[in-house]
Amino acid sequence: MAAEAGAEDRAAARPLLTDLYQATMALGYWRAGRARDAAEFELYFRRCPFGGAFALAAGLRDCLRFLRAFRLRDEDVRFLASVLPPDTDPAFFEHLRTLDCSGVTVQALPEGSLAFPGVSGPLLLVQLLETPLLCLVSYASLVATNAARLRLIAGPGKRLLEFGLRRAQGPDGGLTASTYSYLGGFDGSSNTLAGQLRGVPVAGTLAHSFVTSFSGSEVPPDPTLAPAAGAGPRVDLAAGAAAWLGRVCAHLGLRAQDPHPGERAAFVAYALAFPRAFQGLLDSYSVQRSGLPNFLAVALALGELGYRAVGVRLDSGDLLQQAREVRGVFRSAAARFQVPWLELLPIAVSNNVDEEELARLSQEGSEVDVIGIGTGLVTCPRQPSLGCVYKLVSVGGQARMKLTEDPEKQTLPGSKAAFRLLDSEGFLLLDMLQLAEEPPPQAERELKVWPLGARDPRTVRPARVEPLLRRWLSEGQLCEPLPSLAESRAFAQWSLSRLRPAHKRLQSPAPYQVALSEQLRALVDSLSAGGPV
Amino acid sequence: MAAEAGAEDRAAARPLLTDLYQATMALGYWRAGRARDAAEFELYFRRCPFGGAFALAAGLRDCLRFLRAFRLRDEDVRFLASVLPPDTDPAFFEHLRTLDCSGVTVQALPEGSLAFPGVSGPLLLVQLLETPLLCLVSYASLVATNAARLRLIAGPGKRLLEFGLRRAQGPDGGLTASTYSYLGGFDGSSNTLAGQLRGVPVAGTLAHSFVTSFSGSEVPPDPTLAPAAGAGPRVDLAAGAAAWLGRVCAHLGLRAQDPHPGERAAFVAYALAFPRAFQGLLDSYSVQRSGLPNFLAVALALGELGYRAVGVRLDSGDLLQQAREVRGVFRSAAARFQVPWLELLPIAVSNNVDEEELARLSQEGSEVDVIGIGTGLVTCPRQPSLGCVYKLVSVGGQARMKLTEDPEKQTLPGSKAAFRLLDSEGFLLLDMLQLAEEPPPQAERELKVWPLGARDPRTVRPARVEPLLRRWLSEGQLCEPLPSLAESRAFAQWSLSRLRPAHKRLQSPAPYQVALSEQLRALVDSLSAGGPV
Repeated sequence: MAAEAGAEDRAAARPLLTDLYQATMALGYWRAGRARDAAEFELYFRRCPFGGAFALAAGLRDCLRFLRAFRLRDEDVRFLASVLPPDTDPAFFEHLRTLDCSGVTVQALPEGSLAFPGVSGPLLLVQLLETPLLCLVSYASLVATNAARLRLIAGPGKRLLEFGLRRAQGPDGGLTASTYSYLGGFDGSSNTLAGQLRGVPVAGTLAHSFVTSFSGSEVPPDPTLAPAAGAGPRVDLAAGAAAWLGRVCAHLGLRAQDPHPGERAAFVAYALAFPRAFQGLLDSYSVQRSGLPNFLAVALALGELGYRAVGVRLDSGDLLQQAREVRGVFRSAAARFQVPWLELLPIAVSNNVDEEELARLSQEGSEVDVIGIGTGLVTCPRQPSLGCVYKLVSVGGQARMKLTEDPEKQTLPGSKAAFRLLDSEGFLLLDMLQLAEEPPPQAERELKVWPLGARDPRTVRPARVEPLLRRWLSEGQLCEPLPSLAESRAFAQWSLSRLRPAHKRLQSPAPYQVALSEQLRALVDSLSAGGPV
Repeated sequence: MAAEAGAEDRAAARPLLTDLYQATMALGYWRAGRARDAAEFELYFRRCPFGGAFALAAGLRDCLRFLRAFRLRDEDVRFLASVLPPDTDPAFFEHLRTLDCSGVTVQALPEGSLAFPGVSGPLLLVQLLETPLLCLVSYASLVATNAARLRLIAGPGKRLLEFGLRRAQGPDGGLTASTYSYLGGFDGSSNTLAGQLRGVPVAGTLAHSFVTSFSGSEVPPDPTLAPAAGAGPRVDLAAGAAAWLGRVCAHLGLRAQDPHPGERAAFVAYALAFPRAFQGLLDSYSVQRSGLPNFLAVALALGELGYRAVGVRLDSGDLLQQAREVRGVFRSAAARFQVPWLELLPIAVSNNVDEEELARLSQEGSEVDVIGIGTGLVTCPRQPSLGCVYKLVSVGGQARMKLTEDPEKQTLPGSKAAFRLLDSEGFLLLDMLQLAEEPPPQAERELKVWPLGARDPRTVRPARVEPLLRRWLSEGQLCEPLPSLAESRAFAQWSLSRLRPAHKRLQSPAPYQVALSEQLRALVDSLSAGGPV
């Protein structure tokens, strides 16, 4: 919690992480006497990412943290004064100094909810907050959705790890990626800060540089290890591995001098530090001729002391094929040396895994157990941004609508409620938007709705109706505790389980319908007709 | 500077922004008695991004800031202890508590330098710093290169603004993008924090929500404005604009009720706040029938008071075509109302501008003056990550090389020097890598070099030779002040001016050669031959 509070402070320390035009517009509103007008904005996206038919809503926890801590410090106001006209009314800057979110209310989908274009969380908020909220929601939802897609491809059995910090677009990009790919269905991350600040399970063992840093001539200060059970004399692990090496090489048809001595020294050093968590990285030199025999020698020497290695990792080449070969060697060595646990050792792989490669690695019969994904997860190369928008829908109690000539950029006016309609099997039927003042739809009652993008209405009879939006912040106060990240992660998987497979297909999915109530549809029509043309 | 120090503190507060395996390897080195071995790593990338033949080196300022402030706090060490084996030697954690970069030396290309695969900045550093440095250099260089490409397309005359904060991958992603797209050749950013912390020129005026928030029935507390010259009575700007509206509509063949009254009220409100910086956003309703006449009415009313509007912005539709039409109206209105400055008003555009669209907007005869780019700049959709790597090349004075079966993943061993060779016209000829102990190449002397990827050597006779790497940090101390961001920006443009056009082509460019000295080549050969196979 202390660490989390530190993160909160940091987020709070950046109220100027916003587009300058939010500040210029703030001055415009001020000069027009409208600074305190009640206004409602909606934050949503127009299209599901990656050509799919769903997205996961995420980023709410970061938004709430930002909002609750929002305050302009003296240095922030001074900076704004330096870029606004020199004759600006000083009362405007005094007003900026008093701003906080004590008058702000936020309604949103819980994190991990399925979200569809036009149904993300409406946020009632001052203009100044537009950019940071977009920034906090857009990428979080994108990467959570990307993670959910990858989880769908891999199936529930594989362990998926996020390895993307070094390829992330900036440091917070990395932290956001680690947090929300866990929410979207990954099992953990290499990013230590995400563990510290967000409670994401962290994982990691060793890199090639560790292996290549050893020549084999190093002399560890203490090469001995006590048996796992505690009782018994300490044993020289390097000597034990050297003794096993001959047997392993004979079994594999290799010469004892084939495996690189530096690699073996690195494995011994790592095993001395992590006798209960020894993992071998096999491809620094040659998997078959060096990495694998060195790993087996050290793992078998450890095994004699009662420790079990935790697995191996492959980071180059044809990962599926190599995993098959490695598994074959594990099987034969398990039989030959009578160590049955060796057969089932987890094989981890990494190296530019994308959706196609993940599908290959997850095919039936694959011997891969753990898959690390970096670039393909965190940078979302198929679509590196979710086009989230933040639009004014009501001000001073009056509905507002942007009537641009580009139909996709039109907005849906008015303060709204949103409902999710379910069928009798518990699957999602459609999402419905209506005006806030309308009575909610009733289960088992026929309902005429207007699907977005369709010309004609449709009649539905939902078996169940669920309100979509929850109030998280009311007049600046948190209304209910946020679920933990792990709870949101479980919620995301549950949400996905209620979506029919046709919508979950990653290519050419059946679109999921979002529909308007008759009354909302009528408001859109009347505002469109009464437009400026 | 105070603000900058605050940013420094924040960066420093995140030593755990690293992969967990850096910490597990640290324990492995410790257990092996090698924690203090002298080591040298090189940070570089393997391929130029976006299919181009160049990249700009960037991110050094963030790395140096991070390194100088690097220290593990108690809470960081406690977190690491919670994820490392419970029986870990407490002396290891004591060692972690003492770590800082007082023994670290950094040599690198100055920011804004052209960098080529294999020649980015070598960094001598402890393993633990790998991930944050990769994270800080990789995206900074990528976005700087992307900005440089966009600047090459636009030419020097267009004003290019970065508008991508809301689409950036996380908050720092946005700050990094704004900083380094300025370095790469953009003129400014909408990101206010980048102005505050990094001195990037910031720009921004108004959004559609400002326009649509006005219905036209609002009554500003004070609709009057004093003349620009100061002398003379205050004038009601709303009344002035209303008077001009009739004349403008008559000129354009519109009815006076066609333009949206709310949009005009918004323009008046903005002009009251920014009489010297009034910009109209034209496409909230209809450019031709509403935005343009409303803008002209307000701009002409302002003009009577001696103020000149600063331009207009278009944010949807065919931007090139609309700019042409808007310019046509400006010309005819300038003539009709005898306000010559109207003719040359800058036209700004934004809305999903990518390389192709930028080329269109920059073609001869284009009436577009200012171009805002968001997603296409900051998320680098063509290639959202630069595959930077950080490889051990020497430890304890001995060269190290990774001899994997994947040739692209091999490393170049040993502590190295790098030189840039120039031809007699001052253009870059090639970059040369050699061992640190070799004498530098001489100008006007023939030299045999081994281009990377080629089988045969090549003879060159450089007219000039420049050392590529500078020492920035020596034993933890800054060796020379870092150039300002604006200086690095100018340096980047100068660097690009020395690259032949064939290498600067954005599609199918001629690759720029990086070559090894005979001695380095011989070391590679001998280590390859002596490998484990």
